[in-house]
Amino acid sequence: MLTVFCVRACSGLAGFRTATRVRSMHSLPGITVAQIDEEVAKLLQLKAQIGGDDGKHQFVLKTAKGTRDYNPKQMAIRERVFNTIISCFKRHGAETIDTPVFELKETLTGKYGEDSKLIYDLKDQGGELLSLRYDLTVPFARYLAMNKITNIKRYHIAKVYRRDNPAMTRGRYREFYQCDFDIAGQYDGMIPDAECLKIVHEILSELDLGDFRIKVNDRRILDGMFAVCGVPDDKFRSICSTVDKLDKMPWEDVKKEMVNEKGLSEEAADRIGEYVSLQGGMDLAERLLQDHRMSQSKQACAGLSDIKLLFSYLQLFQVTDKVVFDLSLARGLDYYTGIIYEAVLTQAGAAPAPAEAQNGAPAEESVSVGSVAGGGRYDGLVGMFDPKGRKVPCVGVSIGIERIFSIMEHKAEVSAEKVRTTEVQVMVASAQKNLLEEKLRLITELWDAGIKAEVMYKKNPKLLSQLQHCEESGIPLVAILGEQELKDGVVKLRVVATREEVDISRADLIAEIRKRTSEA
Amino acid sequence: MLTVFCVRACSGLAGFRTATRVRSMHSLPGITVAQIDEEVAKLLQLKAQIGGDDGKHQFVLKTAKGTRDYNPKQMAIRERVFNTIISCFKRHGAETIDTPVFELKETLTGKYGEDSKLIYDLKDQGGELLSLRYDLTVPFARYLAMNKITNIKRYHIAKVYRRDNPAMTRGRYREFYQCDFDIAGQYDGMIPDAECLKIVHEILSELDLGDFRIKVNDRRILDGMFAVCGVPDDKFRSICSTVDKLDKMPWEDVKKEMVNEKGLSEEAADRIGEYVSLQGGMDLAERLLQDHRMSQSKQACAGLSDIKLLFSYLQLFQVTDKVVFDLSLARGLDYYTGIIYEAVLTQAGAAPAPAEAQNGAPAEESVSVGSVAGGGRYDGLVGMFDPKGRKVPCVGVSIGIERIFSIMEHKAEVSAEKVRTTEVQVMVASAQKNLLEEKLRLITELWDAGIKAEVMYKKNPKLLSQLQHCEESGIPLVAILGEQELKDGVVKLRVVATREEVDISRADLIAEIRKRTSEA
Repeated sequence: MLTVFCVRACSGLAGFRTATRVRSMHSLPGITVAQIDEEVAKLLQLKAQIGGDDGKHQFVLKTAKGTRDYNPKQMAIRERVFNTIISCFKRHGAETIDTPVFELKETLTGKYGEDSKLIYDLKDQGGELLSLRYDLTVPFARYLAMNKITNIKRYHIAKVYRRDNPAMTRGRYREFYQCDFDIAGQYDGMIPDAECLKIVHEILSELDLGDFRIKVNDRRILDGMFAVCGVPDDKFRSICSTVDKLDKMPWEDVKKEMVNEKGLSEEAADRIGEYVSLQGGMDLAERLLQDHRMSQSKQACAGLSDIKLLFSYLQLFQVTDKVVFDLSLARGLDYYTGIIYEAVLTQAGAAPAPAEAQNGAPAEESVSVGSVAGGGRYDGLVGMFDPKGRKVPCVGVSIGIERIFSIMEHKAEVSAEKVRTTEVQVMVASAQKNLLEEKLRLITELWDAGIKAEVMYKKNPKLLSQLQHCEESGIPLVAILGEQELKDGVVKLRVVATREEVDISRADLIAEIRKRTSEA
Repeated sequence: MLTVFCVRACSGLAGFRTATRVRSMHSLPGITVAQIDEEVAKLLQLKAQIGGDDGKHQFVLKTAKGTRDYNPKQMAIRERVFNTIISCFKRHGAETIDTPVFELKETLTGKYGEDSKLIYDLKDQGGELLSLRYDLTVPFARYLAMNKITNIKRYHIAKVYRRDNPAMTRGRYREFYQCDFDIAGQYDGMIPDAECLKIVHEILSELDLGDFRIKVNDRRILDGMFAVCGVPDDKFRSICSTVDKLDKMPWEDVKKEMVNEKGLSEEAADRIGEYVSLQGGMDLAERLLQDHRMSQSKQACAGLSDIKLLFSYLQLFQVTDKVVFDLSLARGLDYYTGIIYEAVLTQAGAAPAPAEAQNGAPAEESVSVGSVAGGGRYDGLVGMFDPKGRKVPCVGVSIGIERIFSIMEHKAEVSAEKVRTTEVQVMVASAQKNLLEEKLRLITELWDAGIKAEVMYKKNPKLLSQLQHCEESGIPLVAILGEQELKDGVVKLRVVATREEVDISRADLIAEIRKRTSEA
């Protein structure tokens, strides 16, 4: 509670004094916000003027911290990855939606637990208070509640924003893409959940990123486990976040944190330790259902039965080779209520490791192989937006695309594979001067027939530079015009790769280009 | 110049006093910005606390003002429009790039003239001062300067942000897409400029939005015209923005504004009035080159010669039917240096007019037919970012896609055309109970063969509801499994449209689905 608020800045400096005093706020309802806004606006105006007065201002030519441009080569790779992912989403019958890049600040409030501090807020310029979206899941839930949609299968590919510590060589940015697939609706247990895992399996297989594993657990199993191990109710979330570190820290250190920092009893920690070392499949779920401690928790049993059912569907989907029930998996986000999962690449070689050390990334990062997909069930989130609290059960998965881009870019570099950044089929060129008009006439014919074609923006370019441009950008054909060709009503068609040249009658040119470029 | 800056807010209210005093700034270098930041942070913290005390907070379920979600049907239309536009850009050999949604604030500073007030700033949460991009042109120029790129032909499709007065039924939003195509590089005159107009012509023709016109003018002709008409140098921009209103106001009102508000002499205004009523083609440019007043301006003559050259290329591109040289065209943005253009739809019927009146849009808006594309030459912008001021000549065009979406959506509604939002080819269904496992086995085969397939997430759905889902979402085929079919090793394939059913052996199913859906 604020009763006296007093600031004195640089009061020791003669001639400069800024003082802000606020007393007994509560006795003065109604002054407050608008007046503060005014003061802030004046201070900021002052700041702008000071900035403007500073003659030594150095202009910095860069993108914002943690963000990057995509150059044409990166865009070509990005397009390829997106196409694979979108094809998979469409194969599974998903529609797509889009939501604005910013939401009302209150839409995001209370959805991300501690991570809320990483949300980008917009400046209050009058009107609504806005924040950049932190993920696509909360806007999706807001969309469902706002439009009273009770079932939908949708994907959404868009950028999200987190004021996190960037590690750009590992594909961790402050602006990054998420590729989300979610199924909302009241359905029979674990069928949509299993399809999400099938989708992760298909995408990671098709992208050919090396071997991978999909870890599966359930929020209810975690909570039940904590209960039967003797963790006090109010420590569940805190102990859960310590368990989450098991992929980066050995058990001994995790235990130390539980006991020394979180104040858990040594006994309870040891019991947890036994469980979180377990990995398996349907058999493990069955065994735990018989476990004398675990079986005492109704929650845990519900989760374990669902894991069993999940694995039976995964067998039908033929993806059990990569899926493992892992009791140490504990995803951070508050909104999960049931199954959770995370996919990791298991071949360290797939990661662009060499650049790490130079960039000062922490050592643990170079060792850990990052997660490339994750998700789970969140049956309560939509209800948080519905005025009457009506729930819409949801399960979904998010593909961590930036990390995949990094790997693909690295692969393209290493393989020295030539990535084309345009799709031009033919270059309209000439060896002689003063043929610009004829070239523009020809390229108009080609464009109007749907052929992808280029011409140099020079009146009289050298033939060599025209051919060079084709080599550099991978254009397969050149249509060469000359006085003689014009007289004969033909075009000399040159194949860039073989240097073969053949005269084609003007009337047949379009068909010939189509034939040759569909062959290629 | 700031020497004394003094603010007193609500000093009359007992117990509450905020005073900010700054004196003789210039004598105190080095205090300033950081301290102001601190003051601002404290005030905002105070504000948050006050806000938090208000118990009557009502949660509002909406998107931010001036923004909207895209539902699956809108997304399907959006995808179709994007595909047309991207195909055109690719046909002309463009690469694509992407830049972050926010830039350093200073990157945008001084680029948009008066419109700068419409820029969204991010809150200062420590670190850099950031703003949401206002267009794609300034980030493009920043990208070129930063990467020392001197020639590129690129397109960029992304959202931009303007704190403008939204008019959503007219497709005017605070978050909206721009589709930009730009050619950067030192080339022979007017060839890239003409290609930009060819592109606008192709896109608007293919989108089939009704008749359109592309108005062309040149910054140098405008400036030259103002000079020879007797407009004082310091009034060029101001008079220019009045001329820009000619598409919404009759000349008499424009003249009044020039004379009464901007203080121009009546004589000068009348001279301008004569010129800005002129429209034509190459002939008009030729006539004006002979005009006794216009010919006195070197600038105007350079512009007029370029218009002539432009039209000669447009003839070769066969697009002169829609292009008109219009001396009243005056685009607002500061950075244009040469040719400018704007495309308008000329069929009022194309616009979704009926909704207007209800939404309280001003009357003038219902009358004017909006611009759907615009652009021009900006040879100085990249140089503003280059530390040595090196210029990269650029010309580009931006397609105003939101307005086009509005029209397409309206068309789809009116035509009652069925817009499919998924691409599912086949639904895996059953008439009998307890066949979920068999259905999942079959759909796995289909998915793994690349067939787009769906199954209901219920153990025992009714056949009717499965068929209904196909009708609603336009799925053409149903693969029906039953005990008998399983025994016989076949699947009953049903054509939704004709209700025809045929037994297909399991081994031939995939080929049969492919055949039937490629036919459709």
